[in-house]
Amino acid sequence: MSSAAATHWQANAPSILGEFAELLAIPNVAADPAALERVAGWIQAAMTSRGIDAEVVSLDGAPPVVVGRIEGVADAPTIGIYAHYDGQPVAPERWASPPFTPTLLTRKLEDGGEEIAFPMAGEPVDPDWRLYARGSSDDRAPIVVLLAALDAVPKRHNNVVFLFEGEEETGSPHLGEYLAHLDERLQADIWLICDGPVHQSGRAQVVLGVRGFAEIEIEVFGPPHDLHSGHYGETAVNPGVGLAELIVSMRDADGRLHVAGLEGPPLSETELVAAAAVPDPEDLGFVVNPDGSYAERLLHPLLNLRGLVSADVGDAARNVVPASAIASIDLRLVAGQDPAQMIEAVRAHVSAQGYHLVDSLPTTAERLEHRRLARVTGIAGYPGVRTSPDDSMVRGVVELVTSVTDEPPLLLPSFGGSVPLHHFVEHLDAPLVILPIANHDNNQHSENENIRVGNLRYGLEVMVALLGGGDEPASG
Amino acid sequence: MSSAAATHWQANAPSILGEFAELLAIPNVAADPAALERVAGWIQAAMTSRGIDAEVVSLDGAPPVVVGRIEGVADAPTIGIYAHYDGQPVAPERWASPPFTPTLLTRKLEDGGEEIAFPMAGEPVDPDWRLYARGSSDDRAPIVVLLAALDAVPKRHNNVVFLFEGEEETGSPHLGEYLAHLDERLQADIWLICDGPVHQSGRAQVVLGVRGFAEIEIEVFGPPHDLHSGHYGETAVNPGVGLAELIVSMRDADGRLHVAGLEGPPLSETELVAAAAVPDPEDLGFVVNPDGSYAERLLHPLLNLRGLVSADVGDAARNVVPASAIASIDLRLVAGQDPAQMIEAVRAHVSAQGYHLVDSLPTTAERLEHRRLARVTGIAGYPGVRTSPDDSMVRGVVELVTSVTDEPPLLLPSFGGSVPLHHFVEHLDAPLVILPIANHDNNQHSENENIRVGNLRYGLEVMVALLGGGDEPASG
Repeated sequence: MSSAAATHWQANAPSILGEFAELLAIPNVAADPAALERVAGWIQAAMTSRGIDAEVVSLDGAPPVVVGRIEGVADAPTIGIYAHYDGQPVAPERWASPPFTPTLLTRKLEDGGEEIAFPMAGEPVDPDWRLYARGSSDDRAPIVVLLAALDAVPKRHNNVVFLFEGEEETGSPHLGEYLAHLDERLQADIWLICDGPVHQSGRAQVVLGVRGFAEIEIEVFGPPHDLHSGHYGETAVNPGVGLAELIVSMRDADGRLHVAGLEGPPLSETELVAAAAVPDPEDLGFVVNPDGSYAERLLHPLLNLRGLVSADVGDAARNVVPASAIASIDLRLVAGQDPAQMIEAVRAHVSAQGYHLVDSLPTTAERLEHRRLARVTGIAGYPGVRTSPDDSMVRGVVELVTSVTDEPPLLLPSFGGSVPLHHFVEHLDAPLVILPIANHDNNQHSENENIRVGNLRYGLEVMVALLGGGDEPASG
Repeated sequence: MSSAAATHWQANAPSILGEFAELLAIPNVAADPAALERVAGWIQAAMTSRGIDAEVVSLDGAPPVVVGRIEGVADAPTIGIYAHYDGQPVAPERWASPPFTPTLLTRKLEDGGEEIAFPMAGEPVDPDWRLYARGSSDDRAPIVVLLAALDAVPKRHNNVVFLFEGEEETGSPHLGEYLAHLDERLQADIWLICDGPVHQSGRAQVVLGVRGFAEIEIEVFGPPHDLHSGHYGETAVNPGVGLAELIVSMRDADGRLHVAGLEGPPLSETELVAAAAVPDPEDLGFVVNPDGSYAERLLHPLLNLRGLVSADVGDAARNVVPASAIASIDLRLVAGQDPAQMIEAVRAHVSAQGYHLVDSLPTTAERLEHRRLARVTGIAGYPGVRTSPDDSMVRGVVELVTSVTDEPPLLLPSFGGSVPLHHFVEHLDAPLVILPIANHDNNQHSENENIRVGNLRYGLEVMVALLGGGDEPASG
């Protein structure tokens, strides 16, 4: 642990909480673009007041980004730090305290936490306290701890470039454009995506990737309209049965995904070792697939059957041979898979099961000619990202986090979710690591979002180590 | 062809149409119980005025039936004739002419039929004319032609008992009770169910059975609530995949139904020969299963996947592992299958695929204990009915129809639809045959229901032959 960080926290935790409360009091939802601009302006001012070069940059039709550079020594590595200052929409009536009235509790609300006043300078701060507000964890915490780290480390070793985005929660539609635009100012030896939670166990976590995304809909056609099942059952094709066969055909005898061309690239030994070292999540409340570990499963592409509809069930059920059956699928891709090609692989698989494929509703002639008739439509989202655990900059980050927490962080080779981080890889050509700060039980995206105060301290320690000017060696 | 019937038609077709129009002008829908009583009263009066013993019998909470007996000679067979006087609900705004204003057209509406006045006595009648009104085909036509046959054959050979029901279109909920109540008065050597249409080709048709019915819902349980598919796809069970496997498991490699215990009884040689002689329906507008003939397919039980739902598709799709997947199934049973036992066969099949079955929503403990978890619920409808083509009374009916049309009727071993005719078999212990009169394009159950006038003539000829007192030999 860094003594610079420890000393600074000891002396200044109340003022760090106070400054964070000031930031959190500004609404940060997409529905209020003017407020988003105030948040960006607040961050810029907080940087500038610390002598840091920071600029608010706006592209047409997008919330601004805050971009800047923290100078270290000339030949030291450059580290990129990303966070986003916007938050998920709020439904204030479901919050225990107003989402933009930062509220301090003695502990977690569900554990009987009680509201207390913010501490005065010199008063002790309990790491189990929770600070409630939208964006307290996701994702304004990294910004405030970077500001605090600047105060803790007046003389820095490493160079830092930072980018704070304002539309992550709406899918970062302009991130690629911003990165292209700011390309030269954002060159770094590694990018740290400071977002997401640490491990459920409370252990620090470094994550090396996210999955890509594509969506697919398979519609199997039966008769041109619903038919009386007594008269025409088995005489007409039942599209639900055909769809069930297709779904089953996509897996091997062990139930594993088996669609030619959809296999991910082979896993490296270090990735497998890293995944094996990550403990499975506990108490999920459902039976877990015993096949492989949770972390390893996330390294494979996923074809998830997110929805299924053919005619009706329950009280709405009618005695018909339905005219069609639809499966909706989300594909979670791993690095190296092109979304459009993966959609084609699924299309080819359906075709290989004997289906004639149409692009729009089939004509009468097509219906009469093809007993197996389907339409496969897809939306190619974006590719996944995965950094090798063998990358020297990655090893540096792991060592740095180890120095902070006195034990190696969990090295998760990939998150399960899909995030468009490929923009960083495409535009900035640097390895990328996700370095979360928030507690796992932060109610991300939900009402009563909060951050554990001890996690702010952890964030401060990480940022101090990243700046690398205290008594810590620089990473890299 | 019977000269008594021909002579009577020649001389009296206008008055038969006139009497029918009088009957059709009385509404006959379940929503108007008072009108149903007027219909029953009209029928009774029409019988009584012809010297026939007829009675309106009412059970509590049910529309009345009209029951009666037509005396023949003492040692002649007794034939039961069933029809129903109620009709499907009407949406008058969709009708070309008001449903209870009988309207005569020169031909079918779709073929450019134009309204004409009802013919006066002595005027010729065209068999291609159509009479439009609710219940014109389904199912008041058999009643009016029986009345006309009484006029045509004053001295009858066969004995006839008749039962005209008033709630067939709502599923005949009191038919069993009526049959039990009227048991002794309804004893007959064969029951003729005069309902449904003749064959598409216009050929006369004798149908020896209907299928039974049961409905089943299979719900496969996944996680206790929808889960983030990025985080938990493949880690949690996807219930849609499990359901697809179950659906596929219910068929053999050739796609035929394969659920132990659900096989129907073996088919007799005569049934197979009869089915083979029925031409397949033409121009259905969809690809037809090339496996077997249409008529033979109806002799097998059918497990029809009438609906399928798991989470959502299309714009409503969300990236989740759905909490459950539901299949709704209608079972079309053949004679000899007990509906409750067939539901049990499906339940046993699901269980044999490794599923733990629950009766209500699973508890948390059940969810954590069983990776394969499902609920199978069923509603046992009623059994099917099938009379052997080898029955001597059936052969007599076939000969009788042959004598009317100068060619053997199509002998369909079973309709595909489900009708609760089992009541006749259970209560009256007589063979049962369906003897339709209406044209196949009668718009049954839909707007613009009609009967082809030539089919009324066919009905008259059949009824005259059944009474058996003209120049025709008696059946049986």
